[in-house]
Amino acid sequence: MTKQQTGVSRRKFAGLAGLASAGAFGTALTPWAAREMDARASGLTSQSLSADEMDAFHEAGVSAFPAETRGKGNQPLEYEMDGDVKVFRLTCDIVPDWEFDVGKTVEAWTYNGTVPGPEIRVTEGDRVRVHVKNNLNESTAVHWHGLIVPNDQDGVPFLTQPPIKPGEEFTYEFTALEGNAGTHMYHSHNNSAKQVTMGLLGAFTILPKDPATRPSYDREFLIVLNDGPIGGYSINGKSFPATEPLVAKKGERILIRYYNEGLMIHPMHLHGMPQLVIAQDGWLLPQPYMCDTLNIAPGQRFEVLVDCTEVGLWAFHCHILSHAEGDHGMFGMVTVLIVEE
Amino acid sequence: MTKQQTGVSRRKFAGLAGLASAGAFGTALTPWAAREMDARASGLTSQSLSADEMDAFHEAGVSAFPAETRGKGNQPLEYEMDGDVKVFRLTCDIVPDWEFDVGKTVEAWTYNGTVPGPEIRVTEGDRVRVHVKNNLNESTAVHWHGLIVPNDQDGVPFLTQPPIKPGEEFTYEFTALEGNAGTHMYHSHNNSAKQVTMGLLGAFTILPKDPATRPSYDREFLIVLNDGPIGGYSINGKSFPATEPLVAKKGERILIRYYNEGLMIHPMHLHGMPQLVIAQDGWLLPQPYMCDTLNIAPGQRFEVLVDCTEVGLWAFHCHILSHAEGDHGMFGMVTVLIVEE
Amino acid sequence: MTKQQTGVSRRKFAGLAGLASAGAFGTALTPWAAREMDARASGLTSQSLSADEMDAFHEAGVSAFPAETRGKGNQPLEYEMDGDVKVFRLTCDIVPDWEFDVGKTVEAWTYNGTVPGPEIRVTEGDRVRVHVKNNLNESTAVHWHGLIVPNDQDGVPFLTQPPIKPGEEFTYEFTALEGNAGTHMYHSHNNSAKQVTMGLLGAFTILPKDPATRPSYDREFLIVLNDGPIGGYSINGKSFPATEPLVAKKGERILIRYYNEGLMIHPMHLHGMPQLVIAQDGWLLPQPYMCDTLNIAPGQRFEVLVDCTEVGLWAFHCHILSHAEGDHGMFGMVTVLIVEE
Repeated sequence: MTKQQTGVSRRKFAGLAGLASAGAFGTALTPWAAREMDARASGLTSQSLSADEMDAFHEAGVSAFPAETRGKGNQPLEYEMDGDVKVFRLTCDIVPDWEFDVGKTVEAWTYNGTVPGPEIRVTEGDRVRVHVKNNLNESTAVHWHGLIVPNDQDGVPFLTQPPIKPGEEFTYEFTALEGNAGTHMYHSHNNSAKQVTMGLLGAFTILPKDPATRPSYDREFLIVLNDGPIGGYSINGKSFPATEPLVAKKGERILIRYYNEGLMIHPMHLHGMPQLVIAQDGWLLPQPYMCDTLNIAPGQRFEVLVDCTEVGLWAFHCHILSHAEGDHGMFGMVTVLIVEE
Repeated sequence: MTKQQTGVSRRKFAGLAGLASAGAFGTALTPWAAREMDARASGLTSQSLSADEMDAFHEAGVSAFPAETRGKGNQPLEYEMDGDVKVFRLTCDIVPDWEFDVGKTVEAWTYNGTVPGPEIRVTEGDRVRVHVKNNLNESTAVHWHGLIVPNDQDGVPFLTQPPIKPGEEFTYEFTALEGNAGTHMYHSHNNSAKQVTMGLLGAFTILPKDPATRPSYDREFLIVLNDGPIGGYSINGKSFPATEPLVAKKGERILIRYYNEGLMIHPMHLHGMPQLVIAQDGWLLPQPYMCDTLNIAPGQRFEVLVDCTEVGLWAFHCHILSHAEGDHGMFGMVTVLIVEE
Repeated sequence: MTKQQTGVSRRKFAGLAGLASAGAFGTALTPWAAREMDARASGLTSQSLSADEMDAFHEAGVSAFPAETRGKGNQPLEYEMDGDVKVFRLTCDIVPDWEFDVGKTVEAWTYNGTVPGPEIRVTEGDRVRVHVKNNLNESTAVHWHGLIVPNDQDGVPFLTQPPIKPGEEFTYEFTALEGNAGTHMYHSHNNSAKQVTMGLLGAFTILPKDPATRPSYDREFLIVLNDGPIGGYSINGKSFPATEPLVAKKGERILIRYYNEGLMIHPMHLHGMPQLVIAQDGWLLPQPYMCDTLNIAPGQRFEVLVDCTEVGLWAFHCHILSHAEGDHGMFGMVTVLIVEE
């Protein structure tokens, strides 16, 4: 079981897609790449697009994938030990120029400078302390969504704690309870419709103390969905072609952890291979079921297993098609599962 | 098994939340309560709010909870016996000033003067007669959503019956069939996109003839969701802080009955303790499953069990965050599960 | 097991609904039918409608059902054999006047001239070849949604194939794999938010090689949902009253195949009898469950069984009520299940 995603370079991807050989798909490529970015930025409409122009925009998007951008969320959050306690530090910071797509930036409200924030990953039974420093100009608070914590650690201002005012720090401490393993998240619970969609969100993973209590897998991937002002329809804080591919080898079984941090449903459709849904909101389903399009509502998490039996480049996107493609090509909630020989 | 919700006073709630002790959360409270109501009514935007002002609005909302308002839905509908028949009476009336939040009123179309209408509660095998009097200025009809009734009692104008014209009365009669126990609803099926969202909706519960055929519980709560003109995003016809808390004692198992009478999905997130989903649309699930955020689509009902193991004040809200919180604090589809020692 | 839907004439339906006898429901009918169509076309609002006028509009809609319109989707696509290969032909054509409701037409982008396109129906193990000719003024490509096909047959331009340019033809070939039986679909995967909602969509059914591997039924129906520019909220490309009823005999077990090709969820509510959900995205559920309102998200398919135990005319509609009824009566995603003695 390896933990982090395996990268693939844009050059390698282009080779896999057959895009490296000029004219492989009958359309000249290079001059369009820059032009496409300009056009998407300037909001050109399809009214003036010929079929060839539209194709070129589409090809430029795929060809740019996976596009490099500054900033990457979901990185493992380091901790220090204080006796038996794992001590984490989160800082709420405004990032004025979060690059959600190539050359496109937006103001983001972040934990530790990225969207999503860093991944907090602990094991059942761990004692956890999180210092939260608020550098925003609004109060905030952190809710550990999916975790069973003492009421005064639950993160709801005025209901369970005072708000963390600008400049202040607040410390949470709780135990990741046995039985509470799975895919969870942390996010703001103050002015949350704004603060969460602006980026104050992250993955919180509780690994089982006994790995045998949950299905095994060879590789895992996090898919954090958002539809707010930060990059619009985004996966892990990025919009296609700046999203990251999922890369696996034929024969591997992968685990995908889904999180919906947005305000809309997102039915995620994986091409090529079915998804076996094994857990909802961290809880193992007593009876897993198969699907190819998994509908994920705000606040929900799911865990699915995919047996990577089919080699190739498999589109993987929200099936609300307007969240994934326009006349200038694919954008938003789109990535690719690459299954290599 | 007790049937009705247990009330908690605003004073008691404030004590539980620590709000009674002035400055407990570092913000002066009282002067803000009135101002907050004014501000929300006048539609102030966040542009001009300082962090302290925003906190004060948030605190005022929590502090006002559970706010008293005129009118309360879901009350048990009395019936008379006519031989073996339970005879109920519903009157469709316009209420010009339904108070969905403190000091905020709106015109509602109601059954017997409340939103939701009164709860009709019978037992499998019961013969049921319902007289419906229409005092609206539009025709109407009542559909028994989830009940298996003879076709001519199904409530669809021109398909199964004539419309009930203004001033007229119509009588429905059917048997609550064995096997049809569970959480159902009744609502208008004429010009329904308007009439239902305006308030012509209510809970219809069929208890099992043999209680052993369904899981037992200590206490139960009804959560009727709506997102129409009556109070916007509402629970049982009220918007936070005018919603009612769910109050239980530690160790109790509670049953929550959900009903979506609106036009949008509402993924209901309970903090602190998981929900065990045991029935969908009244039908027991052959395999219950756990979650913390249950997505409920229009027309659906769910029954969930919650084991109240954790003492405290647990936020309970729609996780489409814009249905639950703004820069003036929490509103709409928010309530609190209070678990007392 | 019979495959196609059984028609019912408008005259027969009116008789069943009691609409044939003038004044059966207290409202004069005939003059209103034409007027209703005019009014809906001219976008009259309810402001000026009396209760009687509103009733008349409602009655006119039901009375017109099932209204005859030009064009019918979901027809079985003929094929030729080339050795062991079933060879199908799809042509992408613009139909300038797709009649989605009586007298209401809109430009549609179609496979073989209808919305939905013809149904492709094969059996597990079949070798399938599909020639796709593009007569649009945009490039296109076909994705076999739900099918496990070789990567280069998956239909994503630039990722797995070149786009099919205007005037060009492309040939897909793959095997309907054993284990991949069930309810699938095919649709455009190029500029898809536009091309699919404009009508480039169709049902793809894989029958089991061994019928004993799936539940049996007496009759089956296809319910393809869309919410795009083609007819707005539509079932099988038509808006009520131009939708087609489902007709069954008492005692029959029917299979309903749902497909959501739109951009919104549609919780489909059947009156009178529960739905037993047996398959999701083609995959048999290990544990079928009952409901009366099935929430279907974009990209999802479901198979449900209904035991037609109750005689009568059962409304069957999306329970987002604004997709089904307005002050001028029912429209959009509404049809009727007719259970005959």
